Amino acid sequence: MPNIFGNIPNDLTNEAFSELIKTDTVKIERIISKGHKSPEAGWYDQAQGEWLMLVQGSAKLVFEDQREVELQAGDYLNIPAHQKHKVSWTDPNVETIWLAVHY
Amino acid sequence: MPNIFGNIPNDLTNEAFSELIKTDTVKIERIISKGHKSPEAGWYDQAQGEWLMLVQGSAKLVFEDQREVELQAGDYLNIPAHQKHKVSWTDPNVETIWLAVHY
Repeated sequence: MPNIFGNIPNDLTNEAFSELIKTDTVKIERIISKGHKSPEAGWYDQAQGEWLMLVQGSAKLVFEDQREVELQAGDYLNIPAHQKHKVSWTDPNVETIWLAVHY
Repeated sequence: MPNIFGNIPNDLTNEAFSELIKTDTVKIERIISKGHKSPEAGWYDQAQGEWLMLVQGSAKLVFEDQREVELQAGDYLNIPAHQKHKVSWTDPNVETIWLAVHY
């Protein structure tokens, strides 16, 4: 049985993306961050909606209106298509595990 | 920020279903079980696929071919449309939290 906490890469120089399932209508992926954040310039502006849950660790997201939210394990939120956002912080000391449902 | 571990009902006589998001193509729900299992007779036979992750607790699923799988926290699996299955056991002593993505 695959496990969301399994097979965490030792080398997290880059964020680690794993596609868990992909169908015509949905893609579910695991993302592991460790101190990573989005580039200062620019925003993620996605054509699809994204439902996110933080499985482990902690992170901050910021939106175009400067609103910043902090996520702890179990926190979830929906980012509608074209809601511009970026990751402003992830904990540098632990692996932060995201579950992302792109729909 | 809503949290998958939040607002667990005190009364779990029945399983607790919470719809976290519903769009044209996807429905994400939280299910809380505590000793619940499916009826002995019959199977779940769903027109949609379902991606399941166990967030907390432990549970067993059984499939029509009698294959039984045990899930612990973090375990995930995909149940394709029309793959007949049922819940054969959930831990009676702790709240088992499922995350279900119907797609």
